[in-house]
Amino acid sequence: MVEALEEKHILFFKNLLGNRIQVGSTIESHYASDHTEDFVFYPSIVLKPETAEEVSFIMKYCYEYDLIVTPSGARTGLSGGALANYGGVLLSLERMNKIIQIDEENHQVTTEPGVVTEALQNAVKAVGLFYPPDPASKGSCFIGGNIAENSGGPKAVKYGVTKDWVLNLEIVLPNGDVMWTGANVIKNATGYNLTQLIIGSEGTLAVVTKIVLRLIPHPTHHLLLLVPFRSGVEACEAVGKIFMAGIIPSGLEYMDRDAIIFTTPYVDDAPNLLKDDHDAHLLIELDGFNLDVLMQECEKIMELVEQYDIDEILFAETEAQKESLWRLRRKIGECVKTHSIYKEEDTVVPRNELPKLLKKVKELEKKYGFKSVCYGHAGDGNLHVNIIRDHLSEDVWNNQLPIAIRELFTEVVRLGGTISGEHGIGLVQTPYMDLAFSEVGLNLMRSIKQVFDPKNILNPGKVLPVKKI
Amino acid sequence: MVEALEEKHILFFKNLLGNRIQVGSTIESHYASDHTEDFVFYPSIVLKPETAEEVSFIMKYCYEYDLIVTPSGARTGLSGGALANYGGVLLSLERMNKIIQIDEENHQVTTEPGVVTEALQNAVKAVGLFYPPDPASKGSCFIGGNIAENSGGPKAVKYGVTKDWVLNLEIVLPNGDVMWTGANVIKNATGYNLTQLIIGSEGTLAVVTKIVLRLIPHPTHHLLLLVPFRSGVEACEAVGKIFMAGIIPSGLEYMDRDAIIFTTPYVDDAPNLLKDDHDAHLLIELDGFNLDVLMQECEKIMELVEQYDIDEILFAETEAQKESLWRLRRKIGECVKTHSIYKEEDTVVPRNELPKLLKKVKELEKKYGFKSVCYGHAGDGNLHVNIIRDHLSEDVWNNQLPIAIRELFTEVVRLGGTISGEHGIGLVQTPYMDLAFSEVGLNLMRSIKQVFDPKNILNPGKVLPVKKI
Repeated sequence: MVEALEEKHILFFKNLLGNRIQVGSTIESHYASDHTEDFVFYPSIVLKPETAEEVSFIMKYCYEYDLIVTPSGARTGLSGGALANYGGVLLSLERMNKIIQIDEENHQVTTEPGVVTEALQNAVKAVGLFYPPDPASKGSCFIGGNIAENSGGPKAVKYGVTKDWVLNLEIVLPNGDVMWTGANVIKNATGYNLTQLIIGSEGTLAVVTKIVLRLIPHPTHHLLLLVPFRSGVEACEAVGKIFMAGIIPSGLEYMDRDAIIFTTPYVDDAPNLLKDDHDAHLLIELDGFNLDVLMQECEKIMELVEQYDIDEILFAETEAQKESLWRLRRKIGECVKTHSIYKEEDTVVPRNELPKLLKKVKELEKKYGFKSVCYGHAGDGNLHVNIIRDHLSEDVWNNQLPIAIRELFTEVVRLGGTISGEHGIGLVQTPYMDLAFSEVGLNLMRSIKQVFDPKNILNPGKVLPVKKI
Repeated sequence: MVEALEEKHILFFKNLLGNRIQVGSTIESHYASDHTEDFVFYPSIVLKPETAEEVSFIMKYCYEYDLIVTPSGARTGLSGGALANYGGVLLSLERMNKIIQIDEENHQVTTEPGVVTEALQNAVKAVGLFYPPDPASKGSCFIGGNIAENSGGPKAVKYGVTKDWVLNLEIVLPNGDVMWTGANVIKNATGYNLTQLIIGSEGTLAVVTKIVLRLIPHPTHHLLLLVPFRSGVEACEAVGKIFMAGIIPSGLEYMDRDAIIFTTPYVDDAPNLLKDDHDAHLLIELDGFNLDVLMQECEKIMELVEQYDIDEILFAETEAQKESLWRLRRKIGECVKTHSIYKEEDTVVPRNELPKLLKKVKELEKKYGFKSVCYGHAGDGNLHVNIIRDHLSEDVWNNQLPIAIRELFTEVVRLGGTISGEHGIGLVQTPYMDLAFSEVGLNLMRSIKQVFDPKNILNPGKVLPVKKI
């Protein structure tokens, strides 16, 4: 049961925000969940500020009264970072949804955090500019959430992740102080990089209230190929070969057989892709400003993959076909979930270690008797391993799987990788943080958290595991 | 006078490092200076460790005995970050100069910090790979120093700065603890971004002992243009136009008339560029994998700049000509210094604000009676303003100029920029940090410093101004 908030606190927030609050039983159920497994945690109150000033007032008040605050965007997260698992205040940034300024001359955009990522991309595209990071949830996630989790997406392989596009952030500290972390410039050697410290901190250090992003000219052409492999491990090997040839695709996605089986029924116009002997597919996108160059690269890629045991390559002829293939890719997570609750592991290794990682997954499946669906951003070594619940017993799910996951992550770290590429640590991955960082590193992070949030009121219990005594 | 180190400390270091130390009068003079103005600060001892383990031993010892340590690379810095202005230990990383592994398959390199940046670039180029950041001092600076200062250089406009290429760092904390900050992957959403916190922290938080950098395929072609403008302000305006046309050059450098006058005599094969009516030049580089595409972009740029009042464009025909033009550009700072000591301001603004910044510099020159040489990375709004000492009186140099610089930086911040683009704050820019950050921001940074270095023994007095009471 969620603890009810004292009446005086409710009154304060009502005075500040009017009807932009929800309390107790009036709280809509979507505020209690994100996209992580099947968690449900109701906050005591939902607050919907519209300005940094209001966020500052809220934080000042909560700081004074030791009220726990969980910042929340669109709650599409996959690690539980925006879940109000201690109750308290859910600070929803949904009303801070304005694009403040598109600066065409300097190739920058200033936005509030509650803007849907795809809406932001479309707005800047309308003036010929490009904001590349596009997580699978781009149609519903907020740009503020992307900052919190340092989101990636398919284009990261060529264009980098969210952190590579952020110039400056306006933040509200847990005590209510408001500040800018940097400046609106590409080059900045002025003081410690607070901007980068905030990105990926999953709302545990500060609340982001304004964002300045850099942009580039929007590519004018893109090509898309789908390559069916008879061996998933060979598909992973081909990924490395493409890069070794000096080509940097704007997307290089891996989908195993089950990913396509689970997803095809839910995508209306999905092509009937799968043949009996297909083990995995690579979806390969090229983008740029010169179609001839792209066609040359495309031919080179075809030559490379034809050295493996593949079936016929599908070259997307129309925009509609491209869209449909991308929709298929983007919907995998959602469709697997429709079938069964799952634990989604967001492993990432140096690109050429992918075959080893995939072998390890198969080995663990046998050893622990679970089934997984594997897909993801092969181009940057980021493999999503969805372990599906299906008919697994309570005991296996709760007690055996954490051991299997620990074994998986141990291998990931041994291969030079880490335990989350783009989903964050949030609530569900904290027990594994000791694999990614030594106690020295974890203690540094704990002390940094303490600097920003000495009362531990902002999204406590996320990112950092409890210190062993 | 430098305080002598107690005999027992000297003995400890001798036991640890053998002849890899210099003490007292045996200290060579180059250890007392970097490239900042004419500062000379002798350390009490110079230590030259060869392994992270030795660095750890040294830091443990210094931590125990409260000995001040200044990490030092090649001392090519322009803000005094590696000056031992409190005496104590100068920790020279010069012997940690091995490239540990070039991972061709994953496009990564692991290196020690004492490798000269150009040597690293050449080593990876030999296998077709590219590490883009190339500060003007690339022939002598160390990659470790580039990490410390978050160095930029001409290619930043297309490829970003040092921070955009670092995947992972091995660091030694002030208390001697050794740790890795991240993982060897492009995507990482695992915990706070300690890697980015260390980059640009100018050796005040930790000593970097190993570096993992990402690489990309090396471009196969590059073109170089030199465009003489009759108005420097128009040259700055043209910069914005090039980007607005959707072209991203791999270099876009601004050199004012005086920069060329000062430099030409010192570059043997410098072309005789300057005519009486030239006010400024733009040096424009394009790189890529397809010569036809580059030639098309080149023609587009020519069309754009021909809309301004320019003289004949020089298109570099040979590699030797390209080299000579770049040498001219790279040597400006050094040549101006040969003429006279100067204060180098490293202003950076959003690209299209450059004309306003240039006008402000000219206005301040008149108001305060100084002469400056302006040049830099116009493509990313980074203008170096070298205020030359010449015949300025002691009073103007020491008392008037700081006021002028404060006025300049105030305008820079007003335009959305900041006080250092790539040289860092180091020793000389700390008095101006209050213009870039509010006291809230500075206090956060001070607390972070305290977390890493509670005894304030690692490069104290750099980056952060003393707190006002």
